[in-house]
Amino acid sequence: MSVNKLDATIITIGNELLIGQTIDTNSAWMAQELNNIGVWVHRRIAIGDIWKDIWQSLEEESKLSDIILITGGLGPTADDITKPLLCQYFGGKLVVDPDALANVKHIFEVFLKKPLLERNLKQAEVPDICTVIQNKRGTAPGMWFEKNGKIFISMPGVPHEMKGMMINNILPELQKRLQLPPILHRTLVTAGIGESFLAERIKDFESTLPANISLAYLPNYGMVKLRLTTRGNTPKMVAEMEAEFDMLKQQVSDVMVVDEDKSIQQVVADILLKKQQTLATAESCTGGFIAQMITAMNGSSKFYLGGVVAYSNDLKQKLLGVSSETLAKYGAVSRETVTEMAEGIRRLSDSDFAIATSGIMGPDGGTPEKPVGTVWVGMASRLEAEAHPYQFRFDRQRNIELTATYGLNTLRKFILD
Amino acid sequence: MSVNKLDATIITIGNELLIGQTIDTNSAWMAQELNNIGVWVHRRIAIGDIWKDIWQSLEEESKLSDIILITGGLGPTADDITKPLLCQYFGGKLVVDPDALANVKHIFEVFLKKPLLERNLKQAEVPDICTVIQNKRGTAPGMWFEKNGKIFISMPGVPHEMKGMMINNILPELQKRLQLPPILHRTLVTAGIGESFLAERIKDFESTLPANISLAYLPNYGMVKLRLTTRGNTPKMVAEMEAEFDMLKQQVSDVMVVDEDKSIQQVVADILLKKQQTLATAESCTGGFIAQMITAMNGSSKFYLGGVVAYSNDLKQKLLGVSSETLAKYGAVSRETVTEMAEGIRRLSDSDFAIATSGIMGPDGGTPEKPVGTVWVGMASRLEAEAHPYQFRFDRQRNIELTATYGLNTLRKFILD
Repeated sequence: MSVNKLDATIITIGNELLIGQTIDTNSAWMAQELNNIGVWVHRRIAIGDIWKDIWQSLEEESKLSDIILITGGLGPTADDITKPLLCQYFGGKLVVDPDALANVKHIFEVFLKKPLLERNLKQAEVPDICTVIQNKRGTAPGMWFEKNGKIFISMPGVPHEMKGMMINNILPELQKRLQLPPILHRTLVTAGIGESFLAERIKDFESTLPANISLAYLPNYGMVKLRLTTRGNTPKMVAEMEAEFDMLKQQVSDVMVVDEDKSIQQVVADILLKKQQTLATAESCTGGFIAQMITAMNGSSKFYLGGVVAYSNDLKQKLLGVSSETLAKYGAVSRETVTEMAEGIRRLSDSDFAIATSGIMGPDGGTPEKPVGTVWVGMASRLEAEAHPYQFRFDRQRNIELTATYGLNTLRKFILD
Repeated sequence: MSVNKLDATIITIGNELLIGQTIDTNSAWMAQELNNIGVWVHRRIAIGDIWKDIWQSLEEESKLSDIILITGGLGPTADDITKPLLCQYFGGKLVVDPDALANVKHIFEVFLKKPLLERNLKQAEVPDICTVIQNKRGTAPGMWFEKNGKIFISMPGVPHEMKGMMINNILPELQKRLQLPPILHRTLVTAGIGESFLAERIKDFESTLPANISLAYLPNYGMVKLRLTTRGNTPKMVAEMEAEFDMLKQQVSDVMVVDEDKSIQQVVADILLKKQQTLATAESCTGGFIAQMITAMNGSSKFYLGGVVAYSNDLKQKLLGVSSETLAKYGAVSRETVTEMAEGIRRLSDSDFAIATSGIMGPDGGTPEKPVGTVWVGMASRLEAEAHPYQFRFDRQRNIELTATYGLNTLRKFILD
């Protein structure tokens, strides 16, 4: 198979997705990976562990897509019916796969240290008409079927098991078999300008884009990513893409955070690593959210020293040295307090830079003078300190995330100055 | 309309969902809320901003479902085509809605403090054959259509805008119009036992459940929720449900965390609030993740004092008083270090309880003696301290989340002892 464009559907099976128990993070990851090798996910479907619904979706989606990726429904409990269904759908019978059986036994002996149950042994059974994808990270094997020129791949729903199979088996195999033209993306990140104002500013650029290059607006927590996409990587296409991307960069240079597809925490990390400088945090209203954004990155200990979650005023004073006069006179949510917090953690940790937050995240705690969404972010270097006010609204979680994102972007500018 | 069961489809529109740019958290929230009023979401679909794909999905889903809820595709940029499409699909024409227009103007004047653009004014246009749902939190109004006895509702994709409309308008209206029998759920949370062992243990219970009560296994980060579901709330049904739930509780009493649908952080919070006791945290490997889980809860300042993200050994010593001998002799990831960390933050904050974490989250940093996934969790009260080892595997993010969840459950037992 060598074609220019391949459409995929992702089918996610499991009642937990339909009752709101589980947020589907698998599909986004899969879509990203598939995109990178030139497969366009044009539909994503979530259905329950219901025979008729699964069957019907296989029928429908195989009419619309070339590749159908299925996750979930392969667990050891009675409600997991995907494997027998696939077996019947493709007209096979269940047989024990020796490698899958050895894997199940190995996992129980080495990791779980528990006796095997009959229902665990059943996980080593596969339809005899599929190619088995071994699961190095769990007990349920993956299955690769083909029918009428369409590819169907079934994987477990556990994220790290699915990811292991995708990376080690499925993506390389798809790439080898399909010889896809790669999808080229060039992405930049903007901050401090809304989608509609951005669109207005670059509308002339947008209207003169060549037909083979598309522009997407990807807003996320106060930032908007702009992404150019084309298919293929001939020198001519690459050159054309670069020229358009340069033009786009010029038009948004004043609001551009970075000219790559990177999170704001990664941008700050890269700057600090390059400068060989360090960071510490003092968080009140964000309650550790900034720290965990940073420490989620592998290697963050190279520039991040740590920090304080100074939720109570007592800890703000004791650990960070915020003066009781400042707290009494200006309150915890003030320019003065966040500045002292930033200076305090910087001194204490002897870091090069520090960021501090204090605000009213809601839904409670607002006053007429300081309504919900009132936020101060402070920052300090070895030489100076400054603070910036923000006014957000609504959701507690959204306010926390916006404070973290805006705060880190302000820190980026502070470090670069 | 008064029926016993109503099926819904959620259609999410936007390329960002298909390229993996955005994780869909809306659908899970919507499914949960719809479930509570007796609407069963049996399909969720994500499609791009592509005319033919949207049109086709409306056709298909209206054959399969009674209610079609649509989010996204209503933004001010050129790729948002949902509104004109809906207008054509239902055979109307676009007209300016005066209330929506006043709302757009108000938002620009009061919050954005920017001049209105033509494309923003267009957001106040709606098809003349829909009932307009005003958006108090943004510029794009919602739209309610009816055709051949089916209900179609279009909302913006911005989570807090969608939630505002759902809570204030759509859920009450659906409940009023449809007179649905409520769905009854009883949920308990277990920890420390895998799904298959749990299933084995309660298989007799499961096989004798009455036909109108269903059991679901909902695994999530080392915990498994068990949920009984039935439809209707006659006294007889409620009594039957209670009897079955009591029986289930008895069978899993030794591994049960709580007999409600609650997160582990909420369980710990409730215990502390009831006891009027306080908590502090000292996190190394979880890097603020536990703190942000706690502070994400409204009202957490009533029991949570704050903590330290002691990422560097220097901060472990300076802030928490971990001795350099302990670090040198046992290392940062050890029983001795986490115990001193827990005792240190408890003393410093004068809290009643403290939790501390240290581990190797990966992918780097593992050694033969302490491979990736090696974790110690310490806890301290005013009277005593203890520490527990864990061995996780694989993903950095998963290891962080498992450490937080297991750690908080161990803290729960420590507090209750």
